[in-house]
Amino acid sequence: MSLLLGHIVDVLGGSLEGGASDTAIHRIAPLEFAGPGDLSFLSHPRYQQQLAASQAACVIVAPALRDAALARGACIVVDNPYVYFARVTQLWKQRHMPARSAGVHPSAVVDPSAQIHPTATVGPLCVVERGAVVGEGSVLTSRVTLGENCQVGARCLLHPGVVIGADGFGFAPHQGAWVKIEQLGAVRIGDDVEIGANTCIDRGALQDTVIEDGVKLDNLIQIGHNVRIGRHSAMAGCVGVAGSATIGAHCTVGGGAIVLGHLELADNVHVSAATVVTRSLTRAGQYTGMFPIDDNAKWEKNAATLKQLHSLRERIKALEQALKAA
Amino acid sequence: MSLLLGHIVDVLGGSLEGGASDTAIHRIAPLEFAGPGDLSFLSHPRYQQQLAASQAACVIVAPALRDAALARGACIVVDNPYVYFARVTQLWKQRHMPARSAGVHPSAVVDPSAQIHPTATVGPLCVVERGAVVGEGSVLTSRVTLGENCQVGARCLLHPGVVIGADGFGFAPHQGAWVKIEQLGAVRIGDDVEIGANTCIDRGALQDTVIEDGVKLDNLIQIGHNVRIGRHSAMAGCVGVAGSATIGAHCTVGGGAIVLGHLELADNVHVSAATVVTRSLTRAGQYTGMFPIDDNAKWEKNAATLKQLHSLRERIKALEQALKAA
Amino acid sequence: MSLLLGHIVDVLGGSLEGGASDTAIHRIAPLEFAGPGDLSFLSHPRYQQQLAASQAACVIVAPALRDAALARGACIVVDNPYVYFARVTQLWKQRHMPARSAGVHPSAVVDPSAQIHPTATVGPLCVVERGAVVGEGSVLTSRVTLGENCQVGARCLLHPGVVIGADGFGFAPHQGAWVKIEQLGAVRIGDDVEIGANTCIDRGALQDTVIEDGVKLDNLIQIGHNVRIGRHSAMAGCVGVAGSATIGAHCTVGGGAIVLGHLELADNVHVSAATVVTRSLTRAGQYTGMFPIDDNAKWEKNAATLKQLHSLRERIKALEQALKAA
Repeated sequence: MSLLLGHIVDVLGGSLEGGASDTAIHRIAPLEFAGPGDLSFLSHPRYQQQLAASQAACVIVAPALRDAALARGACIVVDNPYVYFARVTQLWKQRHMPARSAGVHPSAVVDPSAQIHPTATVGPLCVVERGAVVGEGSVLTSRVTLGENCQVGARCLLHPGVVIGADGFGFAPHQGAWVKIEQLGAVRIGDDVEIGANTCIDRGALQDTVIEDGVKLDNLIQIGHNVRIGRHSAMAGCVGVAGSATIGAHCTVGGGAIVLGHLELADNVHVSAATVVTRSLTRAGQYTGMFPIDDNAKWEKNAATLKQLHSLRERIKALEQALKAA
Repeated sequence: MSLLLGHIVDVLGGSLEGGASDTAIHRIAPLEFAGPGDLSFLSHPRYQQQLAASQAACVIVAPALRDAALARGACIVVDNPYVYFARVTQLWKQRHMPARSAGVHPSAVVDPSAQIHPTATVGPLCVVERGAVVGEGSVLTSRVTLGENCQVGARCLLHPGVVIGADGFGFAPHQGAWVKIEQLGAVRIGDDVEIGANTCIDRGALQDTVIEDGVKLDNLIQIGHNVRIGRHSAMAGCVGVAGSATIGAHCTVGGGAIVLGHLELADNVHVSAATVVTRSLTRAGQYTGMFPIDDNAKWEKNAATLKQLHSLRERIKALEQALKAA
Repeated sequence: MSLLLGHIVDVLGGSLEGGASDTAIHRIAPLEFAGPGDLSFLSHPRYQQQLAASQAACVIVAPALRDAALARGACIVVDNPYVYFARVTQLWKQRHMPARSAGVHPSAVVDPSAQIHPTATVGPLCVVERGAVVGEGSVLTSRVTLGENCQVGARCLLHPGVVIGADGFGFAPHQGAWVKIEQLGAVRIGDDVEIGANTCIDRGALQDTVIEDGVKLDNLIQIGHNVRIGRHSAMAGCVGVAGSATIGAHCTVGGGAIVLGHLELADNVHVSAATVVTRSLTRAGQYTGMFPIDDNAKWEKNAATLKQLHSLRERIKALEQALKAA
């Protein structure tokens, strides 16, 4: 498995400097681990110190770091080294790893009424129910369930264990028990969406749950019924989004965060890991709510005091008034 | 797909007023989205403003809102509009969506010693192990694992990816490693239980894990070994209940909450989303523990101060004493 | 199903006192539930009160409690009752529950290039991809996906729904969209590792994700790409570990905790449930960050005040200065 430096710049662009086109690259590696046969990249000036020490055969750098890189050896100069690196990984995979073959694996259970584009892949042990649609080039890797009437757009990638279109969680309380609200909507997923392993997206109650183009969801995420996630938003693992929340475009949600139901997040809202969104966030920005980690003994003292915080505030007020009166 | 208003009230009761029995309903829709062919409902007086503006063909309302509804057009007057709406969704589904057929799908792997009621459904690519029992009318949708000797009662609905009866997490520490405690119990699930996609319920260590009648669990929930969940309790997505916790009847647990092990929750305890239950809750009520979300910059300041909270309390005490002495 | 007390001590050691070798044990049970045919154990002196009242046929105890146990009836005296109890569960399972048979279940989909040790078990409806390796005596229970080139060592146990080797979550932002970074690494799992139901371990971006020997992971855990988890560390359910985190040996992580990316945890670090690890923890110890649960009304007051905490500190400072000046 190797790629020539000359081939990489022929396909992806960029300017190869201080090195020979016929140098063979045997691996792509982070700067600190890269050896003499490896291609690496400098994604942030912060890591510049690692540059001089790296043994990489060639390093992808931005124009501003061209001279520093050349002092060390070969480099590929490009405007956005991180995006270029991403494209090199794609080239590498395309050249060296056999692609999943299109079509429906014989072990998958696909309803005859489902529409699977001829270029799409339905992998082993997937279930595709009545009326479901899988678009051009999309891949259901393995053990994915795509429920009745749910749609997946073009070029989507659904990892193992994904469940699209289970019933949303809807019950009306009645005489101490729960009466099921049948979930009559479906799930509509746009183009270029990636969905991580064992992530679940519930069907809508009356209307559809919607995942817009370019959304990226990590593993073990729960998306409730009637939710809408805007274009190119991304969520890290273990996030939960409750029913009827509307999330804007270009948002990011950190791992383990929870978004409560019926809220709206504007475009470009960024929610930190493990934060609970309890109100609509109508302005772009970074939002956080997370108890800071500490030694257990210190945490215990501070947490105990936190339960008296409101009364501490009253005591401060009283002190202020007493001092004023004095 | 349509239903006549007259047919709805014939089957479900309620009083149709200001409209014709032969009006065809083409969709059920929320009040704000409902069009001229749609049936809608007003579940809470809070949404009354939307009533007048709605274009719905008919609105389900409580007696107190009958006049306001009639001023707009047709309505069905019932004691509990939300429960009635739930029943309309059930009627709609029953009339318009073909039911899953009972029986064992040929792709499922079912041990010959398992007992599957003839009216139960074991869907595609499920695994039912030795000695497991599936009761009358229960449905294992697809890709469900029901482990050895585990029991599912009548009229249960298990969504894709559910795992019942994996080993509980039990190990004895020994010389820096872990000695496995074999999990010899099973899981017993009552009647009318619904379990969401990719939710896991572990088998008990020595005795059984028990889910009582009418419990509703959302997606991606973890229920540890030996847990007991009381009748008609409901949990939202991403909840974790650690081993040997006992949860009462009619409890609700919000999304992402964690219940630690060996605790007891009384009947009618309600735990807010993302709250960590660290002690038994012996009285009914609503309980919460959640760091409030804020702009990231403000959060950083408050979180930093929180780590000194105990010493701030000491400073307040000192101030109070100094002022007293002054 | 029974075991003779004499047989238990013959196989596992320990000293049977005050009881007959030919006493038949019909069940293993916790002290408070044990009946006349049951074997129980006292794992902690804290539960000594339950000892006298127990109806168990025999109780496993440490030497220090021998006399108290004998006063009640038969006992097995051993150095570590909890580890001994674990071994009794293993003996019980081995004698009374038929083991999973080795080999590949006919419903599993296994690539011809995968290497499955002849003593390993690949259960129903598993998927084992190209180049994957399953070592001696390891068990993939059912519905497990083991991705391309991923390796599982000897004597591992993977519960239903586990996904090993889905793509890590890596994207380079570009013009408002995300460019996929193909994940070229794999997952390497050592010996004696147990992985709970529906847990996911992502493949590395450039290098491998590594789970060392003896690690125990509970259900619904997310392990990001490039993570390394050291020997004999254990994590409870619903934990999320973000990409490139390095966790030492003999660590424990409580349920629902989140470890952010690129951090390092030293050996013997213990993270409490629901805690968010936002910085490297370079010293052994217990760490916690969790908002204390309270009645909802009290929580609301304290949480509201928390959002002014930084300014409260300023007011305390001002008071101190005013008092000093007075």
